[in-house]
Amino acid sequence: MSDAITPAEADAVLLAHLLPTRSVRCPLEKCAGRYLLEPVVTDRPQPPFNRIMMDGYAIRSSDGRGPYRVLGLLRAGEAPLPLPFETGTAWEVCTGGVVPPGADVIVPYEHTLKKGADLFLTDEAETGVGTCIHAEGSDQQQGEIVLSPGRRLGSREITVAASMGYATLPVRQHPRVGILSTGDELVDPADTPKTHQIRRSNDLAIDTALALNTLHAQTRTSLPDDPDIMQNVLAELMDSHDLLICTGGVSKGAYDHLPDVLTTLGSQSLFRRVRQKPGQPMGFWTRNDCRIFTLPGNPLSVLCGLHRYVLPFLHACLGASSAFAAPPVQTLQDSPSDAPLTRYLPVKFGPDALVTPCPFRNSGDLIRPLESDGFLAIPPHAEGCSFPFYPWY
Amino acid sequence: MSDAITPAEADAVLLAHLLPTRSVRCPLEKCAGRYLLEPVVTDRPQPPFNRIMMDGYAIRSSDGRGPYRVLGLLRAGEAPLPLPFETGTAWEVCTGGVVPPGADVIVPYEHTLKKGADLFLTDEAETGVGTCIHAEGSDQQQGEIVLSPGRRLGSREITVAASMGYATLPVRQHPRVGILSTGDELVDPADTPKTHQIRRSNDLAIDTALALNTLHAQTRTSLPDDPDIMQNVLAELMDSHDLLICTGGVSKGAYDHLPDVLTTLGSQSLFRRVRQKPGQPMGFWTRNDCRIFTLPGNPLSVLCGLHRYVLPFLHACLGASSAFAAPPVQTLQDSPSDAPLTRYLPVKFGPDALVTPCPFRNSGDLIRPLESDGFLAIPPHAEGCSFPFYPWY
Repeated sequence: MSDAITPAEADAVLLAHLLPTRSVRCPLEKCAGRYLLEPVVTDRPQPPFNRIMMDGYAIRSSDGRGPYRVLGLLRAGEAPLPLPFETGTAWEVCTGGVVPPGADVIVPYEHTLKKGADLFLTDEAETGVGTCIHAEGSDQQQGEIVLSPGRRLGSREITVAASMGYATLPVRQHPRVGILSTGDELVDPADTPKTHQIRRSNDLAIDTALALNTLHAQTRTSLPDDPDIMQNVLAELMDSHDLLICTGGVSKGAYDHLPDVLTTLGSQSLFRRVRQKPGQPMGFWTRNDCRIFTLPGNPLSVLCGLHRYVLPFLHACLGASSAFAAPPVQTLQDSPSDAPLTRYLPVKFGPDALVTPCPFRNSGDLIRPLESDGFLAIPPHAEGCSFPFYPWY
Repeated sequence: MSDAITPAEADAVLLAHLLPTRSVRCPLEKCAGRYLLEPVVTDRPQPPFNRIMMDGYAIRSSDGRGPYRVLGLLRAGEAPLPLPFETGTAWEVCTGGVVPPGADVIVPYEHTLKKGADLFLTDEAETGVGTCIHAEGSDQQQGEIVLSPGRRLGSREITVAASMGYATLPVRQHPRVGILSTGDELVDPADTPKTHQIRRSNDLAIDTALALNTLHAQTRTSLPDDPDIMQNVLAELMDSHDLLICTGGVSKGAYDHLPDVLTTLGSQSLFRRVRQKPGQPMGFWTRNDCRIFTLPGNPLSVLCGLHRYVLPFLHACLGASSAFAAPPVQTLQDSPSDAPLTRYLPVKFGPDALVTPCPFRNSGDLIRPLESDGFLAIPPHAEGCSFPFYPWY
């Protein structure tokens, strides 16, 4: 294990080799899940005018409980008419509209009474100056930063950006991702495998996790353990993709040709093994502007490597500010480790946000982890009960 | 507020009026985020053969530490040759392959030594029967249910389904969703609004939240407060969509025509107001197989209604088993409520999975909730510190 690095060292290598992705201006309707590159600032005070907060009547506080003469109805989408200086006049108004100049209180319909043409306020009506008025500039002044770079774009951010007049936002271009499975033993999911064969599943699982992160793979390719074929196909894939996620062919087996093929093609390995279980024979390579993850073929190792490294790497490339910092969660009981390497332990949330372990039974056990919500990364010789948590996608 | 129902009553109405969506068979690569409709069962024992768990040598336990004569290399993708009865023979083998009949131990390369043509095991080598062998059928027998209906499909589920020979999975067809904004005061995000105008943002925010839930809207439409135009457009939208999400036009304002237009077009309101803040004037309508949410125009009310009702409704329509059951989270201090209605309180996660409030400053405050991770639903006259939590999308 002398050539194996620690998970923290692997993170540092990945962060130092992010993809040189281009900045693009993305229409708001395509921004979901991306990361903002430049601040969003207010283009006018917020709210931009004294905003009516309830449907009802605009009056002057000093005019008391009535009677009021209603001058007419002002629509939300129209420039407001002023309230005349004449005592006891009111405008009927709509939520979201501008408070008529001269009015200083909005009284909701439910706190008013009509007697013939006259309007009266009920005892419940509040008449303090500013009631039901969202005052101009009370939230922000013009030119204030409301969204900072690195922020992930969800519904709230899009509401704010649209309100501030941004029809597009600067984000990073999505990398062209390719998924490559290797292994003579693999057949298609639709095929009936011979006893010694298994069905290809890793590429589809990776694609699914990407989709749940608003990403996707351009290509999925499956290759036999044949160095010549691998060399030809990989050369083409590396030229046409920014990131390759490979599974299989990197263990110590006699037919694990992937590292040799990558080397022949001029790629450089930044690491080939990580002190972790499962998924120790995991590597990361670079060739010009292409990055290559080499994950082992075991599905559990693939899932752990994908969630622990590949997805954070992609988020970091897209501009996430702390993609590799997984939030810690508490376990129900101490989970000490006497293992000399980092262990990935599937866990399930229980009451009070505490987690309980659902350990793998073995490296081929796909079923037990289905009970879990994610996994903890438990460092070597760890004590305590709080560890970084990676949710399953 | 006599016509207003409680949030729990609203949930019950929504659950009783789910969309009659069709079941479709979806290719695995398009299943991300959907819900399984029928069980996935094992089509052969798991693992399907005695599986080699390490690269190295297959030996017979009774043959001790060597010397061994290596007969050759067996590839993972080939039918295995047996280990002869002759003492001291070994096959070189690869991870994922079939254990050669007659062999009962796999010894990893790192626990072996070569001396000339002879192979010896080191002192570290374990030689107990079954070492580094994942025994046939030890995880599941043939015909066992491994994924149950209602389960959301992520990377693990796709790994399992592909391994079991499912090239497609039965899921519900995505509903055709339309988003409709109403309001004379609305201008496009790219336009410069007059003082009394604001930019349209709700439709884009809803679309973003849908995308982060692997859904999307077919159409986004913006309409003025004109009953004739609304009637024509709505009739067409209701015929061509399964779900309409409308914002604005449902308050008590004189130009809030939406309920009248919906009624004229033959829609039935199942509720029009919910005892909650923000977002009290929220309604749900049905017309033939079309469902219509009417949310108020205020962005905060839209965001709360969307996360509290519309997204759970869509997940339930797609087959989620408990879409309306939000997990409770703990607040750092008691959040008692003396409000007579359910209050939505934005909160932020701190250490130990406890949340602290980031209350709205007012109904137009878009900025303060940006600090939060989601919101709590605090029922009327509540005590205690554990409340259902809705994360922001």
